This record gives sequence, C-alpha cells and structure tokens, in this order.
Amino acid sequence: MGLTHLVYPGAMHSRFHHAIGAMHLMGMAVDVLRSKGHEITHEEAEAVTIAILLHDIGHGPYSHVLEHSLVSGVSHEDLSIILMNRLNQEFSGRLTMAIEIFCNDYAKKFLHQLVSSQLDMDRLDYLSRDSFYTGVSEGVVSTDRIIKMLEIYDNRLAIESKGIYSIEKFIIARRLMYWQVYLHKTVISAEQLLIKILNRAKELVNAGEEIYATPALRIFLEGRIVAQDFDQDERVLAAYAELDDFDIFASLKIWKYHRDPVLSLLSSHLIERKLYKIRLEDKPFHESEVEAHLENIKKKHGFTQQDAAYFVFTGIIENNAYNSQIDKINILYRDGSVRDIAEASDQLNISVLSTPVRKHFLCFMAN
Amino acid sequence: MGLTHLVYPGAMHSRFHHAIGAMHLMGMAVDVLRSKGHEITHEEAEAVTIAILLHDIGHGPYSHVLEHSLVSGVSHEDLSIILMNRLNQEFSGRLTMAIEIFCNDYAKKFLHQLVSSQLDMDRLDYLSRDSFYTGVSEGVVSTDRIIKMLEIYDNRLAIESKGIYSIEKFIIARRLMYWQVYLHKTVISAEQLLIKILNRAKELVNAGEEIYATPALRIFLEGRIVAQDFDQDERVLAAYAELDDFDIFASLKIWKYHRDPVLSLLSSHLIERKLYKIRLEDKPFHESEVEAHLENIKKKHGFTQQDAAYFVFTGIIENNAYNSQIDKINILYRDGSVRDIAEASDQLNISVLSTPVRKHFLCFMAN
Amino acid sequence: MGLTHLVYPGAMHSRFHHAIGAMHLMGMAVDVLRSKGHEITHEEAEAVTIAILLHDIGHGPYSHVLEHSLVSGVSHEDLSIILMNRLNQEFSGRLTMAIEIFCNDYAKKFLHQLVSSQLDMDRLDYLSRDSFYTGVSEGVVSTDRIIKMLEIYDNRLAIESKGIYSIEKFIIARRLMYWQVYLHKTVISAEQLLIKILNRAKELVNAGEEIYATPALRIFLEGRIVAQDFDQDERVLAAYAELDDFDIFASLKIWKYHRDPVLSLLSSHLIERKLYKIRLEDKPFHESEVEAHLENIKKKHGFTQQDAAYFVFTGIIENNAYNSQIDKINILYRDGSVRDIAEASDQLNISVLSTPVRKHFLCFMAN
Amino acid sequence: MGLTHLVYPGAMHSRFHHAIGAMHLMGMAVDVLRSKGHEITHEEAEAVTIAILLHDIGHGPYSHVLEHSLVSGVSHEDLSIILMNRLNQEFSGRLTMAIEIFCNDYAKKFLHQLVSSQLDMDRLDYLSRDSFYTGVSEGVVSTDRIIKMLEIYDNRLAIESKGIYSIEKFIIARRLMYWQVYLHKTVISAEQLLIKILNRAKELVNAGEEIYATPALRIFLEGRIVAQDFDQDERVLAAYAELDDFDIFASLKIWKYHRDPVLSLLSSHLIERKLYKIRLEDKPFHESEVEAHLENIKKKHGFTQQDAAYFVFTGIIENNAYNSQIDKINILYRDGSVRDIAEASDQLNISVLSTPVRKHFLCFMAN
Repeated sequence: MGLTHLVYPGAMHSRFHHAIGAMHLMGMAVDVLRSKGHEITHEEAEAVTIAILLHDIGHGPYSHVLEHSLVSGVSHEDLSIILMNRLNQEFSGRLTMAIEIFCNDYAKKFLHQLVSSQLDMDRLDYLSRDSFYTGVSEGVVSTDRIIKMLEIYDNRLAIESKGIYSIEKFIIARRLMYWQVYLHKTVISAEQLLIKILNRAKELVNAGEEIYATPALRIFLEGRIVAQDFDQDERVLAAYAELDDFDIFASLKIWKYHRDPVLSLLSSHLIERKLYKIRLEDKPFHESEVEAHLENIKKKHGFTQQDAAYFVFTGIIENNAYNSQIDKINILYRDGSVRDIAEASDQLNISVLSTPVRKHFLCFMAN
Repeated sequence: MGLTHLVYPGAMHSRFHHAIGAMHLMGMAVDVLRSKGHEITHEEAEAVTIAILLHDIGHGPYSHVLEHSLVSGVSHEDLSIILMNRLNQEFSGRLTMAIEIFCNDYAKKFLHQLVSSQLDMDRLDYLSRDSFYTGVSEGVVSTDRIIKMLEIYDNRLAIESKGIYSIEKFIIARRLMYWQVYLHKTVISAEQLLIKILNRAKELVNAGEEIYATPALRIFLEGRIVAQDFDQDERVLAAYAELDDFDIFASLKIWKYHRDPVLSLLSSHLIERKLYKIRLEDKPFHESEVEAHLENIKKKHGFTQQDAAYFVFTGIIENNAYNSQIDKINILYRDGSVRDIAEASDQLNISVLSTPVRKHFLCFMAN
Repeated sequence: MGLTHLVYPGAMHSRFHHAIGAMHLMGMAVDVLRSKGHEITHEEAEAVTIAILLHDIGHGPYSHVLEHSLVSGVSHEDLSIILMNRLNQEFSGRLTMAIEIFCNDYAKKFLHQLVSSQLDMDRLDYLSRDSFYTGVSEGVVSTDRIIKMLEIYDNRLAIESKGIYSIEKFIIARRLMYWQVYLHKTVISAEQLLIKILNRAKELVNAGEEIYATPALRIFLEGRIVAQDFDQDERVLAAYAELDDFDIFASLKIWKYHRDPVLSLLSSHLIERKLYKIRLEDKPFHESEVEAHLENIKKKHGFTQQDAAYFVFTGIIENNAYNSQIDKINILYRDGSVRDIAEASDQLNISVLSTPVRKHFLCFMAN
Repeated sequence: MGLTHLVYPGAMHSRFHHAIGAMHLMGMAVDVLRSKGHEITHEEAEAVTIAILLHDIGHGPYSHVLEHSLVSGVSHEDLSIILMNRLNQEFSGRLTMAIEIFCNDYAKKFLHQLVSSQLDMDRLDYLSRDSFYTGVSEGVVSTDRIIKMLEIYDNRLAIESKGIYSIEKFIIARRLMYWQVYLHKTVISAEQLLIKILNRAKELVNAGEEIYATPALRIFLEGRIVAQDFDQDERVLAAYAELDDFDIFASLKIWKYHRDPVLSLLSSHLIERKLYKIRLEDKPFHESEVEAHLENIKKKHGFTQQDAAYFVFTGIIENNAYNSQIDKINILYRDGSVRDIAEASDQLNISVLSTPVRKHFLCFMAN
C-alpha cells in the first residue's frame, strides 16, 4: 500500500499478504470451475496458482513511486517475467506452464484471465483487503459470491447472470476505492514527495555529489536503468530483488542531514509527515497560480526556479472504473447467450463508469 | 423481515432490533450535529429519539402482506400516529414534541428529516442490519461516516461535500438491496402466497364458513377494516396491537386441515415452503401464458376459474433508488453552496437511479 | 435459544441454523481427517453428515421447558432416533448407517464422537453461534483451529498436542457461556415461568376446565405422555413433529384472558416480560424466606398455598465444564502417546473445571 | 509486535496504532467512571489521556531485543519519563499532571491504574489488537464490557461483581496470548537471533572492526550506553528517538555481506527467515546435548567455542498470568464489600494462574 498508511493508518498490510490471499482465491476459483464441469488438470491448477502467487513479484518498494523516479520505462509485468524465468531455471522448468499462462500464451485463455483481467483474483483480493485494512467499507466486495458465479464461455471467463448485481457493485466499489484510497489526494501528495526526493538524490549523484545510499539503492541512483539492464546486468536484477522499504527510508533518514537544502528539506518533510498541500481540479491550473506559489518558495528559501520546482508543481491523475475496450466482463445467461456487463446492466450506467476521469493536481509546500 | 428468511435463513432479526438500532444512530447524529454548533435542546433530543424509537410502531406482522390483505387502505404511518397519541395520553403529553417532529409540524425541519427522509436513521439502520443478517455484503453502508458528514443548511439536513462518495454508495447499496433482498423473486412469491391465504380466509369467513382464527386475527378476517375503525373502535386498535406472527402462523397451521381445498392447499404450501414458481419480466405477460397455467391448475384440481386465480396470477413491483422529486439529498460545499446529489455527482448517473424500475411478475403453482 | 432473547435480544437464531452449521463443520472435519490419512468412505461421510444434520431433530420448542412440563421422562435423543427411523423407512434404508453412528453402534467409534462427545461438531457450532448472536464474546472458540487439530488414536478422536491451548480455551469458554448465557438467571426465570404456565394449563385440562389450545398442543396437555406413546400412538408423534413456538405462544396469548387467575396472571407476566425475581445462592434458601414470599402472594391475590406455589418456589441448576468420567478429551503427542487434557494441561486447573457447580435459585413474583 | 509477523504474518500493526487505540479506550473509561458519579475534571481527563498516549514512547524498535543487546539496564518506563519531560518543557508545563499520573504521584490513584495496572487501557488494547491481527481468537477480550464494569473503591479501580466472568476470561486470554503469541517458540527464536546479531555487531565495533551502521544505530553499537547517558548526553537521546526498524534492518542487510562469518551468517539467516531450531522444556537442558550441538557447529564452520555460542545456546522464559502480589484486581459487590479476584472466583483456579510458569529453551542452528 505504499504510503497510504499516512492517510489510513491501518493500511500496513504488505504485498506478501496480497500474494497469499490471491493464491487462496485462485484455489476457490479452480474448485468452482471444476465443479461446473470445466476441466483443469492438476498441472494447470498448479501452474495458475504459481502464476497468481508470483504475479506481483516484479514490483519494487513503493512501486508507483519507483516507476516515476528510479526505474522509469520498465513495466513491473516485464520484471515479473524476468524473475519468473530465473525461478524457472532454478526449478528446472517447473514454472514453464505458469509463465505461459501469465503471458497469455496458454491455450486455455480463461486461466490467464484468472490471473489478469477485469475480474482476476488479483483485483478480488486487493479490493477486499484494502477495504478491510483502510476501514473504507465502500470497497467491500462479495468475493465469495463472485467466484461462485464464475463460468466459462467460449474459452473465456464469464459470470452467471444471477451474479449481475455483484458485478455492478464490484465495478462501483473499485471506482470508489480509487478515489477514496488509491488516488486520495493526500496519498498522491505523499507519493509525489517521495518521487521528488528520489529524483533529487539521483540528480545529486549524477552531479558528482557525495550522498549516502544503501548498496541496493545506489545502483538505481547512479545510472539511468533501462529495461534491458535487468536482463543483461546481473548486478541490476540482484539489487532490484534486494531493494525494499528499509533501503529507501534508511537512506532518507540520513538525507535529512544532507547539505543540499532541497534534498534535506524534502526528506525531513516526508519523515515528519509535512506533505505538500494539494488541490484537485477538473481543469488545468492557471499558470499564474503556479507561478505565485513558486515565487513564494523562491523568496522564502532563496531557491532557483529549477530548485523551486521540487516544491511546487502540477500533474494529472486519471482512472476509469471499467474499460470494455480492453477486456469485457461477460454475463452468461441461462439460454447460453452472453452480453457485456456494459449492455447487460439495464440500470447502472456503465457507460459513465467506462469514461476515464481525469483530475489535475497542484502540489505546493505551504511552509 | 417478514418472510425473507425463507430465502436468507439468517434474516431472523426483528423490528425491535431495528427500532433500538435506529435509536442508537439517532444518538450519534444528535452528538455530531451539536458538535458542529447546531443547537438541539435536551427536550428536542428526547423528542427526536422517541420519534425514531416509535417510527415503525404502526407496522403489523408481515406488514407488506397485511396491507394487501387485512388492512388495505390504512398506512402504517397513520397507525403509528394513532398509537403515539395513545401513548401520549398515557404519558401525560410527554410525547407531544415527538409527534410534532414525526408529523413534520416542528419548526426545526431537520429533526423530522432525521426520522424520515432519504437519509434518515431508519434507512441507515435497516440497510446495515439487513445486509449483515442476510449476508448480502452488497448492502454494507458506511453508517458511521455518513452520520459524521451530517450538516444543516437552511434548516435542512445536508452532507459535507467530502462525504459524496459515501452517499453515492449508499444510494447504490439501497437499490441493490431492493433487488437482491426486499424484492427478491422468492420473497415476492412467499409474500404473495401469504396474501392469497389471508384473502381466502377472509372470503370464507364472509361466506359464513366456520374457520379457526385467534381472537386478534378474527376481527380482521370478519369485517372490512378501514382507517377510521382504528380510531373509533377500541377493539380494533387493541386487536391490531396484539396481532403478531404467532396469530398468523398458528392459524395457518390449523387451516392446513380445513375442508376448503383452496385454503388448505395454499396453507400447506407455505408451511412446507412449496412456494409459487415466479417469473420476472420487463413487459406484461401474454394473456395466453397466464391462461395456460390457469387451465393446468383447473384441470389438475378441478377448480373454478375464480379459485384457480389463487394459484396463478400476475402483478407488478417497482422501485426507484433515488427520488429527488420528493426529497433531495443535499451536498454542502466548503464555500457554503449546496447542490442536489443528482447534480453533484459528476460520475454516477443518478438520473438513471432516479428512474423507477418496474417489473412484471407471474406466479403459478407448479405442482 | 428458547427464551434467551429476553436477555440477549440478538439471540434469534434457530435450531435450523445450528443444524446447517454443524453439518458444515462436519464437512470440514471429514476433510481434515482424510487429509491425515484416515479412511472415511463416501458412504460413511454421507452417514455422519446425516447424523449431525438430524442430531437435534427430537427437540421440541423450548426444549428444556417441555422436558420439565409436557414431555417429562422422554429424552430428546430417543425422539431423534424415533424420527430418524421414520425417515429411514421413507428413504428405503438410506439412513441406516447414520443411525448406527448416532447410536454408537458403528465400528469406527470416532464417527460417533464427531456427532456426540465433548468435542463434537454440535458443541463447536453452538458455542460459536450463540457467542456471536448474544454478543458475549467470551464464548468465541477457535472452531477452525480445533477442527484442523483433530486426529484419530486407537479408533477415537484426539487432538494434536499443539492444539492444547485451544482446547483449554474451549472448555473455559463453554463454562462461561453456561453461566453467562444458558444459565443466566433471567433466562432461568423466564424458563421457569413457561414451565409453570404449561403445568397449570395441564392441571386445568385434567380438572375438566375448558381451555384453548392448538390441536398439536392439546394432545400434550390432555394426557401424561410417556416415551412409548411416541412409538405406539401415531397421533402423538405427528403432534410432536407439528408442535412449535407458534402453538405455544398463540395459546399463551389467549390464556392471558382465561378466567383462572393463576393461568391468566402467569401468561400475562410472560407476554409482558414481567418475569420472576430470581436469586442465586450456593446454599439452599431458608424455608422462612420462601414462606414469607408465599404469604405475601397469598395475601395479595387471595391464593391457596397450592396456587401460590406457582409464584414462589426454589430449585437447583448445575453444570460442569468438563467431565472426564464420561468422555475424555485426549491429547495426542508427537511421540504417539496420549493423555487426557485434565492431566496434559499443566497450567489450567481442569480438575476444578470438572467439579460440577450447583446453584440454588429462589423465584418469586414481585408484583 | 517486533518479529511476530514471522509467525503470524498479519501482525503488522504498530505501536502507533496501539497508542491511539489505548487513548480511545481511555476516553470510554473516563466517560463510564464519570457516569457513575466519580469526578474527573477536564484537566485530569486530558492528563490521563496524554499519559496513556505516551505510555510507550520510551520503547525502541524491537524493544525486547534492544533491552537484551544495545540498551541493557535501561527500562523503557524511565525512557518514557525522560521523553515526557522533554515534551513538557516544549509544551510549557502542560504535561505536568500527565507525568504525575504516569509516575503514580497524583492523588487520585485510580488514574494511574487506568494507565498502568493489571486492568489498564494498555493491556485492554493490546490483547484485543494482537488477537485480531494474529488471528488467534483465543485472545479476544470483552473490552467494552470490562470498561463498562469499571468502578472506584477507596480511590482505586474495581470491577462490578457482575463482570467477574469477563475478568476471569481476561486473565486466561492474557495467559494464552503469552504462550501462543508473545512467547511462541518461533518468535523467541527470531528475537534471540536478532539479539545475537546486534551483540556480535557491537563486539566487532568494540574490537575496532569496520562495520556499517546508520548514524542512529552506530551510537548504540559503539559504547555501553547506561541509563544516565540518556539524560546527560543529548546525542544519545536524539539517536534513540531516531532509531527505528529502518536503521536495524537496513544495517542488517549490509551485514549480510560482512567479512566476519558469524555476523554475515547470522544476518543472512534472519533475512532469509532461517531461524534457530528451538526446543522448550520444563527442566534445564543437559549440558551434553548443548555440547553436541556446539561440536556440530564448530566442525561444520570451523568456529571457535566462543563463536559457536552465537549459534547454540540456552535460556529461560517465564510468565505469570496474574500477580496479586503486585497489584490486585478487586471485585466490588453490591453490598459495598471488595474481594481480590483470586479469592472471588470460586471456579477458576487463579492461584494456579498466579504461579509463574518457567520454560527452558535451547536454540541451535540446524544448517
């Protein structure tokens, strides 16, 4: 949950919990589909279980943050595949089918969908889990019921028609969790702060400035790491596998005392939870407003325009709750016909939910 | 919950639980509003608490069923007021303010809204409670949070703007609970069966047939009770106050052995949970389909057309999740402005939710 | 839960819920034992499931009350067997093995223990369920964990040694639930009141007094029903199967208006929840104290000594939390040895828990 | 919860949660006592709330571990007082009464007991919280009910007699949580491993070996810090306040690559969760058994006897559930008399619970 605990203190659960939980749900899903007469062999069950257990293994600490600072341009799915391939070597090919499922190269397409689709075990687990630990009861989803409604139609996942209300609720819950939790404005503010800190640290390292970093972190501060480095430079992958919250925050605690005022100020702000003030708007912010805040900071701290930009900046977040372009949720009727939930729901306006919502944000340090 | 337990066995909670629960929420709401600087005197707090405690006192057993059989044309709100007035006499006028609030005759209109409006403590309690006991987690509502977001604007309830997602969720949860629980087709079927049983019993009594009934029930079987009877005939109100599930079901258990085949068949069907088959459609059913079922029953049991109509019939149910015509939910912004949730929600299509949904049903006894 | 809801309003759950719940736990227990290599055939699994589903079928409404009034001298286990035998005829012998297990006539003794022993699925279900619905969190038991610790030793159930704390807790929780819920003094008071009412009604019927009763109830009021009547008189078993809360309370509501002052007074007391005052003591009450209350009642209502005894009386309740005489809970160690929990627990004083606790009660009607 | 999550993965909650939770319970306790007519002024309520909020502020990361390695001989209560005094200076004396209550120097002794006694808000919070997050339902305590039963007798806390079962359960739950969670053998093993690691690091530093440590950690590795250092050396207190999990684990991750084989082996063992094998016995282990394990390790790694002792060692853990010597739990009867729970409980053998339980452990690294 990255820095979400700064807003919802209960959200201390980890990716480990999520992986175990999603694996548990996968076991249920396999049982349900088998009980409805769909063949899933022992090997396939093991493979799809491995696939979901490892589906997030490519994530680093504060994953979203890292993608905007230290490892930009490298998707965590790609990293998951690289790591799975390493494990596959270690386990003498036992993960081959799991990797095929993960990459959607396996014939039974519905197995991939159980791992990655609009109704995968990943989403079913994290929505329930995050809702529970944040206390945002809005996100509660009838996981058990949705899994019991799973069906297969034309080699793809579908939902029995009597589960339609649960699916509507699932889509809405997911949308609400985005705005109430994942894209909560204070969470955005905290993440932006960590992004700026890491970017500044990187900038200083590249300028030849001496700066503390744990060994695993140092590699990512020093050079511009691109996708192929993970595959070709053994050190990079090893460092990435080792990198965790301890590296980031132990370094940050030391940077608080660094002589660079930008780095030390930003670091102490995060440690003392003095986050950016943040405003969300439907439209872009006026340049004059941003400029006023920048002037303010420059005057107060004697910063250059460039340095002040670490303290005042704008950006965009967006989310859409349901995207039928990419991957439909199909409702299966008793007569054997199938309809996309967006059409099947005569009451809920899925078309509204499918429209991406964009918001502009302005971050500025108030004091 | 009437006969809902025939579908959701856990739903054994009673109106007593609901009344106590809603009273508890009222205490929280009063505290929240006072803490935001709105004056609620000790007397007003007592009165609004009494009003919510007694708001459902006019309901009889299987309330919805009774309104379609024994006490048609009398609203339970009217009966609540009659009973409150009696209590007021007994308590020497101590309920006067509570009755004013209940009837919306009290100057502070928001107090009435806490008892009866789209966001009253009644709905907040029953949604959570029914969701919990049925296990339909779709209905979970952030009761605590909604209450904490309560505000007053222009003498009426409003919701702080940051509570908007919770309100959206509340409206959706309510709609889903209607279709998944309150208007669940098997619940409708069971209720229709009880309506038909009571109507048949009444018909027999009026035809001079001897038939068992507990004393409280007999009064309602014998004559056509209209609204003013409750006020003018002491016996009617006393019988109504005494009437409960025990009267209905103890009588039904005896009717199972009555010589009238319609009454005995219907009664044993309900006792043995052999409910009507029920189909729901968006459009009215073809007369030919209804006729076919009627013929079936007539042939099988040798019933007249009139008697067969107790076993095969159609009807309509309808529900709308949000009705801004009657009573808006107002969102209060930081700048002091107010907007109806139907406009304020840029993402959820409240206009869709506001449209009443009608469904036609066909009930027929399969065997 | 009989009349427990008069003390814990949430306790509205029924024997149906309990039967379904215990059956669910049985499925888990069978899975666990099989996974540890103990053979349970498909037929045995079905049989033990039927046995637990029906284990309580011999209970009447307010079972404990009935055993002290209308059907004294007939154990509900015997009635369960009679009813199972009937069902067995109806189902052409398919319940034969279930009945053998229930009666402990089946070779695999541990199957009987799953249905009836100090650690059966019955207790595991009702403790958790009653604890949940009453809100007495003291009774929470780690049902899942206890079932996961189940083992078989020498054809009998045992618990893996690492489950010892859960068993200690289970025994203590059960003891606490007895004193806090099942033997709560107000529950005792209510049950005694219902016993007295039914006994008075029976007395009046036998004295030739006209008195209302539903048909099912009448049979039990009229004659002294003994065990063999259930087997030999078809009417008795049919009436017993039909008898439920509706019969009892619908009759009681009418008795409230009976001309016998004892019956009407007692009945209205229960309906209006004006229960006996009750005192619990470790020693018997002084005769003088009882006499004083009797005089009081006699004077107030002009009752005879005999009639006054319906309003003032003493009795005894007792309970022991663990009884190793009857049926031990065996702890199975890794070295294959087995010890009774009463010895195995070096910390908890099971010997104290094994001592039955007796309490004397005095009931008297205060007004 | 220190390293408990290595056994119970859900146990990720922090001291911050606990402090907030205990503060919440304090608010409830103050309300209950006031509602029973005991005066608690506004200032006292604030002070006792501050006292509970800060009661654990003297704890470092992995507190129990630190007390056996880096800061031995300094109690966390003393450190709490030192830190509270600093805060008191910062807040111009506003914490004076809170500190008096914390130190039991305030006249209303029951206020201190709410912060620190056998029934304080500290225990009530952590038992419920730890039980919840570990999933060990054995530890569930009726927190709400116990607080509602609070009374004051002779300036000290007491419990209303009808709460006696809840207190029995509380004492037992606490005992069980100790053995099942806090003193779980794998938790002990993990803590011992961290103790050994820190002791080795300290040993190396003192031997002049170069070794990485975050600045805050370095101070505690370098010298033998005694109680008065915290008061006299500003740097020590500052470092202690800054020291957290990040310092410990970021350092450990680097020590994994240290050239000292003892430090690197121990560190990698903890990081990879290869903990000591641990055995618990009622009696001390035979020297011969310990010696055999030591020989094993010496042979395998070529360690000296002294170095091998980092991998094989024995120790003692002990716990008693109730200690009436130090601080009684008093039960207040309706007649105004008071008895210690150890006497009042006629059923539970508190004397057994009061006896400290000692267990000997043997840790050895298996591979």
